[in-house]
Amino acid sequence: MTVSRREVLLRVGEVGGAGAALAAMQMLGLSIPTAAAAADFTLPKSSGNGRSVVVLGAGIAGLVSAYELQQAGYRVTVLEARDRVGGRAWTIRGKDRVIQNDRPFQQANFSDGMYFNAGPARIPSWHHVILGYARRFNVPLETFINSHHATGWDFDGKVHSGRQMIYDLRGRMGELLAKAIDQNALNAAMPKDELDAFRQFLGFYAFLDEKGVYRGNASSGYTQWPGGYTIEGKAIDPLTLKEILPSRGAAFPQIFESIIDMQPTMLQPVGGMDRIAHGIYEQVKTNVRLNTPVTGIRRIGDRVRVEHGGQATEADFAIVTLPPTLLERIPNDFSAAKKAALKKVVILRSAKVAFEAPRFWEADGVYGGLAWTDRLNENVLYPSSGHHGARGVIVGAYVAGWTHENTPEAFTKLPIAEQIRISRESIEALHPGKSKLLESPLAVNWGQVPYSEGVGALWGNGPGDSGPRGDGYAELLRPEGPIVFAGEHLSYLGLWQEGSAVSAHEALKLVQSMAAERAGKAAAA
Amino acid sequence: MTVSRREVLLRVGEVGGAGAALAAMQMLGLSIPTAAAAADFTLPKSSGNGRSVVVLGAGIAGLVSAYELQQAGYRVTVLEARDRVGGRAWTIRGKDRVIQNDRPFQQANFSDGMYFNAGPARIPSWHHVILGYARRFNVPLETFINSHHATGWDFDGKVHSGRQMIYDLRGRMGELLAKAIDQNALNAAMPKDELDAFRQFLGFYAFLDEKGVYRGNASSGYTQWPGGYTIEGKAIDPLTLKEILPSRGAAFPQIFESIIDMQPTMLQPVGGMDRIAHGIYEQVKTNVRLNTPVTGIRRIGDRVRVEHGGQATEADFAIVTLPPTLLERIPNDFSAAKKAALKKVVILRSAKVAFEAPRFWEADGVYGGLAWTDRLNENVLYPSSGHHGARGVIVGAYVAGWTHENTPEAFTKLPIAEQIRISRESIEALHPGKSKLLESPLAVNWGQVPYSEGVGALWGNGPGDSGPRGDGYAELLRPEGPIVFAGEHLSYLGLWQEGSAVSAHEALKLVQSMAAERAGKAAAA
Repeated sequence: MTVSRREVLLRVGEVGGAGAALAAMQMLGLSIPTAAAAADFTLPKSSGNGRSVVVLGAGIAGLVSAYELQQAGYRVTVLEARDRVGGRAWTIRGKDRVIQNDRPFQQANFSDGMYFNAGPARIPSWHHVILGYARRFNVPLETFINSHHATGWDFDGKVHSGRQMIYDLRGRMGELLAKAIDQNALNAAMPKDELDAFRQFLGFYAFLDEKGVYRGNASSGYTQWPGGYTIEGKAIDPLTLKEILPSRGAAFPQIFESIIDMQPTMLQPVGGMDRIAHGIYEQVKTNVRLNTPVTGIRRIGDRVRVEHGGQATEADFAIVTLPPTLLERIPNDFSAAKKAALKKVVILRSAKVAFEAPRFWEADGVYGGLAWTDRLNENVLYPSSGHHGARGVIVGAYVAGWTHENTPEAFTKLPIAEQIRISRESIEALHPGKSKLLESPLAVNWGQVPYSEGVGALWGNGPGDSGPRGDGYAELLRPEGPIVFAGEHLSYLGLWQEGSAVSAHEALKLVQSMAAERAGKAAAA
Repeated sequence: MTVSRREVLLRVGEVGGAGAALAAMQMLGLSIPTAAAAADFTLPKSSGNGRSVVVLGAGIAGLVSAYELQQAGYRVTVLEARDRVGGRAWTIRGKDRVIQNDRPFQQANFSDGMYFNAGPARIPSWHHVILGYARRFNVPLETFINSHHATGWDFDGKVHSGRQMIYDLRGRMGELLAKAIDQNALNAAMPKDELDAFRQFLGFYAFLDEKGVYRGNASSGYTQWPGGYTIEGKAIDPLTLKEILPSRGAAFPQIFESIIDMQPTMLQPVGGMDRIAHGIYEQVKTNVRLNTPVTGIRRIGDRVRVEHGGQATEADFAIVTLPPTLLERIPNDFSAAKKAALKKVVILRSAKVAFEAPRFWEADGVYGGLAWTDRLNENVLYPSSGHHGARGVIVGAYVAGWTHENTPEAFTKLPIAEQIRISRESIEALHPGKSKLLESPLAVNWGQVPYSEGVGALWGNGPGDSGPRGDGYAELLRPEGPIVFAGEHLSYLGLWQEGSAVSAHEALKLVQSMAAERAGKAAAA
């Protein structure tokens, strides 16, 4: 009996519901797998049944936890150390104050409508959970420009456009591969007809001439730009492989956009990243206590007691979303294994420097996107929206170890003034004569931001990338009795808001199952 | 004597002005060449001195001509056949009527705020002239999403994500090249240390294992998407080269984004492409006569007489921006060579089909961008803005010979209903079960749009691409006495609004020099 594709789908649909049908469609190649289903998380209605939960931290993980608990009928208290919600999703505006440990006080001086996303700035379009909350709470989104081929790549003291670095690499690689094929070095790799077809494609793909030579291409830019009537474009002379890859740092921007979290389309909330946190906050506001740093986390029988400023909040359960570094220092009665695991998490301590300026980069054809450099500032981010507006906030340094072996340490050990100077100098190299237009600098060193002390756990998110997490990761996930844990560091989407949200979902499932178990026991008693 | 870079710049700056200094900086590798200077075009103030110019056509070339002439003190009359300006920059909204030669009447049925750019839809960030007009007339711009790695590529009956097609190609190419290097087939191509360094880079760039094998990578997508706690991502199995390139058509999307006019960042006016034309129109409105098709173009001594509907407009000069196909049919006394050249221009007759729908594509992680197929509809465009809004306009067919050898002819010879059916079917393959949500279809076949009859001249814009233009191109540029010509077809930016604008600038320079010559003669007389 032959079963048609349609029959398979209908049958699977009957038995396993829409999710199973989708999985089957994906198996049959009828649909592209997506992460969309994750956005549908919800706890069973009224399952909270009045039980209480104290949530530590009003970042994304804490706010998501509080919202979902509240929806399910739990009583929730959120304790937040700062005077604002959002945690690392921190957007700086106007005259906002920037206080950092062991750093001079800084005050922002941005014009109306200008803002600086000191923390996360972009959302990949497959991060369905955080996007789902944005949608639910009507947070308007716009496109974040991650990739822009007109920005400068400044390596080894020379600035080339991104487009030249990208497409000259393609040309040079294609040229080498064509040479190998033409010299019959790859005859064993594929059937001859396939190899011939691929060789033909290669000429087209890598802009090779009939002899397989790469002589440059307009994809890499022009020296004379095409115009009206007889003004023909003249393609820029091609770079050699050595010029394209002068140093190890120059390799990174070549793969940056291939990282699945960095691929277009990327999104940002209109007006600042903290708009999503605020959208959730609006739902749970009455249960959030700001300016309430936690000073102790204790178990009392099967309940929890959280101390703060001489007071205490007791609850049936706790969801703790604090970064490991901070959590480890708060007096607690966690297991020795948990305490050891908290100590071992390696934290990324990145930094950003921002300026406000008139939009001089647009005259150079730059609208959003990233510039790259092997200078200590590593990365320059242009604003993704407000094109042709009067002014914009340009991030002159985003230091996280992208292109420079010794950052962020080498950068963050410098005085703020020096960090600003380096950022200015880099922008000057990209836009000669323009750095004098940079105003209102502001440097955020995350390792020194109180209640964050870093941007997250430095372990990979990729498949098979469990190695660096080691045994400590499983220990971090283990509840301490009625206390469960959440945060980006407890996900395979580390360093992303999505990771915070999905880790919260897992923590919520644990709370829910414990609550159900207790209800069962109570009923049996 | 050694001259420092700075000295060179200062000296060049003194003698040649800022432009020369910029050119020198580019020579010294201190700055990336840009096309920005082209945006500074202006005719000498008051140089028109009351002379009259009749402009034929109120598309971009005509509107730019009228505006610049008016600024320089010319008396201008613009004659436009249609009841609207913008020409091919046509945005369809609400209940707009769509009349096409030999086609049934169609009426749009779009909701408030929805629109369909039937003509141009995107602006590259280096098209400084058209962007300059947008800036000057305060036309708000937003990002156009050209490239989006989550869209589907539907070739040979199978849908894969763009990200998988792009990064599996990279992996497979890298694997072949690594094999050639590891087998010493490329030892002669580069010094050994450079080759070693490149081989190391290749492993990183193309996601190869230690043995140089490509086993797939998360860049190509996941079968299990990463999540919270222990949910590790599982990368999708890699495709073979044969699956990545099943047909010639599948090669095109692999190079699409490398075309310099298609590289990010791309832009669009908020609310529809015609906003730029309207921005210019607002400046010259009182001099534009709509509903005025031209029926004759005559020379009277050194002046021009343009006939329309029994009337005539006389002027010192004319700027004719009509497409060659139309111009050729209007009675005129052009040279035989010009008439022959007009007949020979090969015109692209592309087509688009649009629908309005709820944004079902966002659940599949698609926010803007293009899907590709070897079906007759070739290309699907998702809206670049209004993310998470209730509805959007999706272009279900953009047929221009991208991926299918026989389009646009094979598509445009079909009845409208059949064009819509093919578009629906293609969207169904990309988003199973969702095509039933597509409403209010509208098909624009440019070959049959009155007063356009195509989207432009089909000759390449690339360097050295003068071949297909042949001798006819020079003839098309040649003024007929006081009559000069403009339009995208008279530029090396053919098919783009930028081409229309820069060709107008060249035409204006010709008018200006003729006017100056006549003024000189008059003064001498």
